Amino acid sequence: MKQFLTVQDGGNIKKLLEEARYVKWNPFADQALGKNKTMLMVFFNSSLRTRLSTQKAAMNLGMNTIVLDINQGAWKLETERGVVMDSDKSEHILEAIPVMGSYCDIIGVRSFAKFENRDEDLNEVILKQFIQYSGKPVISLESATRHPLQALADLITIEEHKKSSKPKIVMSWAPHPKALPQAVPNSFAEWMVAAGYDLTITHPKGYELDPKVTAGAKIEYDQDKAFEGADFVYAKNWSCWNEENYGKVISKDMNWMVDKEKMALTNNAFFMHCLPVRRNMIVSDEVIESKTSLVIPEAANRVVSAQTIIKKILKSL
Amino acid sequence: MKQFLTVQDGGNIKKLLEEARYVKWNPFADQALGKNKTMLMVFFNSSLRTRLSTQKAAMNLGMNTIVLDINQGAWKLETERGVVMDSDKSEHILEAIPVMGSYCDIIGVRSFAKFENRDEDLNEVILKQFIQYSGKPVISLESATRHPLQALADLITIEEHKKSSKPKIVMSWAPHPKALPQAVPNSFAEWMVAAGYDLTITHPKGYELDPKVTAGAKIEYDQDKAFEGADFVYAKNWSCWNEENYGKVISKDMNWMVDKEKMALTNNAFFMHCLPVRRNMIVSDEVIESKTSLVIPEAANRVVSAQTIIKKILKSL
Amino acid sequence: MKQFLTVQDGGNIKKLLEEARYVKWNPFADQALGKNKTMLMVFFNSSLRTRLSTQKAAMNLGMNTIVLDINQGAWKLETERGVVMDSDKSEHILEAIPVMGSYCDIIGVRSFAKFENRDEDLNEVILKQFIQYSGKPVISLESATRHPLQALADLITIEEHKKSSKPKIVMSWAPHPKALPQAVPNSFAEWMVAAGYDLTITHPKGYELDPKVTAGAKIEYDQDKAFEGADFVYAKNWSCWNEENYGKVISKDMNWMVDKEKMALTNNAFFMHCLPVRRNMIVSDEVIESKTSLVIPEAANRVVSAQTIIKKILKSL
Repeated sequence: MKQFLTVQDGGNIKKLLEEARYVKWNPFADQALGKNKTMLMVFFNSSLRTRLSTQKAAMNLGMNTIVLDINQGAWKLETERGVVMDSDKSEHILEAIPVMGSYCDIIGVRSFAKFENRDEDLNEVILKQFIQYSGKPVISLESATRHPLQALADLITIEEHKKSSKPKIVMSWAPHPKALPQAVPNSFAEWMVAAGYDLTITHPKGYELDPKVTAGAKIEYDQDKAFEGADFVYAKNWSCWNEENYGKVISKDMNWMVDKEKMALTNNAFFMHCLPVRRNMIVSDEVIESKTSLVIPEAANRVVSAQTIIKKILKSL
Repeated sequence: MKQFLTVQDGGNIKKLLEEARYVKWNPFADQALGKNKTMLMVFFNSSLRTRLSTQKAAMNLGMNTIVLDINQGAWKLETERGVVMDSDKSEHILEAIPVMGSYCDIIGVRSFAKFENRDEDLNEVILKQFIQYSGKPVISLESATRHPLQALADLITIEEHKKSSKPKIVMSWAPHPKALPQAVPNSFAEWMVAAGYDLTITHPKGYELDPKVTAGAKIEYDQDKAFEGADFVYAKNWSCWNEENYGKVISKDMNWMVDKEKMALTNNAFFMHCLPVRRNMIVSDEVIESKTSLVIPEAANRVVSAQTIIKKILKSL
Repeated sequence: MKQFLTVQDGGNIKKLLEEARYVKWNPFADQALGKNKTMLMVFFNSSLRTRLSTQKAAMNLGMNTIVLDINQGAWKLETERGVVMDSDKSEHILEAIPVMGSYCDIIGVRSFAKFENRDEDLNEVILKQFIQYSGKPVISLESATRHPLQALADLITIEEHKKSSKPKIVMSWAPHPKALPQAVPNSFAEWMVAAGYDLTITHPKGYELDPKVTAGAKIEYDQDKAFEGADFVYAKNWSCWNEENYGKVISKDMNWMVDKEKMALTNNAFFMHCLPVRRNMIVSDEVIESKTSLVIPEAANRVVSAQTIIKKILKSL
């Protein structure tokens, strides 16, 4: 495994889940693999779960870890090519990336969509430069369009709680005060379909995701109808993906909040969210604090997903 | 030991001091205890000594350590219950705490008094949520009302330097430009009384601390009289605790600064302060640089106090 | 080895280079030396390479590492003596330094020239206080006037690529939008002369460095003439050192940028820069991306230089 950016990089999903199960029950079994190896985590954006769980995963594997917050203690980075660097950005990413690569064995990168230029976001300009120039295996810690470690943790969590072999999963848009990227819903959709689940996506008109990403899922604009018979409800906000309104918030309709009444329509569904979550916008206090809320075990499984992937990469070094 | 927030949590003080002495002389003897265990330190406020000494203590015990500065690199946290989260705070502490707990074995928390709401401070709202929701043993790295790791380090330092079995300790208020919490003087008072020392507290009128906290200590409003015969002078500023002026600075009387003339009234007393200290407000350059100043050994003992407590918790896991 | 601030501290250069070669090929051979030892790195200024490479070096040697960004998460420090501390600075460096020293075995410090007071910069006021008060061996992570770990990495890189025993090295000033310190060119000049290379320094009039530092080097104001026959071109910006214009930018002449035409004058020279570098100000995209650009291996050797020095210090503890 030379990179982990998408569901395709994960390889055979059944096998990956078996490896994850082994890691979960034997977290300290593979410390010889990580000895004298360094995991560098580079954050262009904020992080709680990813920051902590990936560090934990790497340490469980016996690695050294270094966390670097770009624009906090390090130099500001120029990302555009060919410019005369006379601004406040002291260093070009074309130097910074291979340098960072030279100090580690695996490099994790978080770089969100900026919503300034759709093509730049969709083309994963930052992430691709890390792949091209770091000389080291790259793990996405959430890129402009994907969040695969989250989706793998989600998948592990569903596997642990599902009551049928092909559960009905509903991914529901929900309101949020700010414009959020599509990375999490993109990865969730791809991983659920790849896992062979029955996936329904529900959202207001205008919030359609990339059709390539949602291929294999049902799209249902009526949230109530979507929730009928659901075994898992995965709530998430995202901003518009289409060219016309890319990165815009065209609705904050509070009727889409996941509350007790909505959950009553389901097959006693589990509630999931990747966190951080806006309470009483995305989901009511009641639902997130209910017995069927999986948000904490889901977050705890972030260590398992990260460790599974880092272990695979270490084995291939 | 499941938590360490107050002097009561420390258990038998004599025994604790023996354990501290062992830790001080055998800092690397217990690394098997911490192997594959993670210490997470969460800072809502600035820190130098606590940050470094607690990391050092955990590493001495063979633990992995992760430091998280809230509001620096992580998401801003909502702490109030029931609100519609449409502000700049991306995550509720009700999710963040159990998530953090799921990534570690022991969790340390620094959360100062905010002086916005007296009841909230006195009730230790943040700290209590960590205890309730993290699912892990919690160590106070200074809470709204207590700083027990500091007081234990102070106690260790006094034990190392005392010339009689029951030394006279004077804790003196001193002027400061800003409103400071009562956490340090509260803990110092409680620990000195618990250790059976002769404690006198001196401060201008209006700066009375919680009488429950100072029970067992003499209160003397005349600083000169208080200093007479002192073996140890512990200087510290704090703001008002009473309901009327809670968190306010009602005096910056520079006559209360600890200087050479004041120290001349004592029994050649040692000078102590928890640091950081404002020179030439709390204490004169002369006194803090004198031979009887213990501020550096006192800070060095922060490793010992932290390691003693972490070790006790590791043994009880 | 009790400190590493200048070329003199490095001792015999031939021997140091042999030690560096051993470290490069046996990075994990000396972990017994660092066991239970703590490397503390204190940053008053931004850092990418130094931050990562020094951490990596210390971890390679089996040490625990702690990174502290002053003014980010720690208290703001007062550096002036004798003041009444009633400003926003909570702690005096006279306390902070010995406290930091008490929590580690080796202390690394980055503190750039401030350009507020020339004497203060030239006298290395901050660094000298660390030496005087920390009680621990001090490694400069770039001080006001020197950057020895960079120069040692530069030297290692030249040794690895030189085609003759006494290559011609040209250090060339180049334009930059901001006023930069003289630490890097100072150390480079001293180390190149100490290594017995043929060093030419070229810059516009008015950018003369300290003559004590450049003793043994040729000064050539005509950049084209300087480049003739060069085996290595080391580009760097610096601001004025002389008393009249100390810390000022008196020229941003873009004719001094190192481009293909300039490099064509050389003996097919290697291009070097310590990074971060301003592309298309200091050097053209073409040159820095050319096959003879050594900027990345040079940065990678920062681990080697740091590890060589830390190892020497560990052996002397």
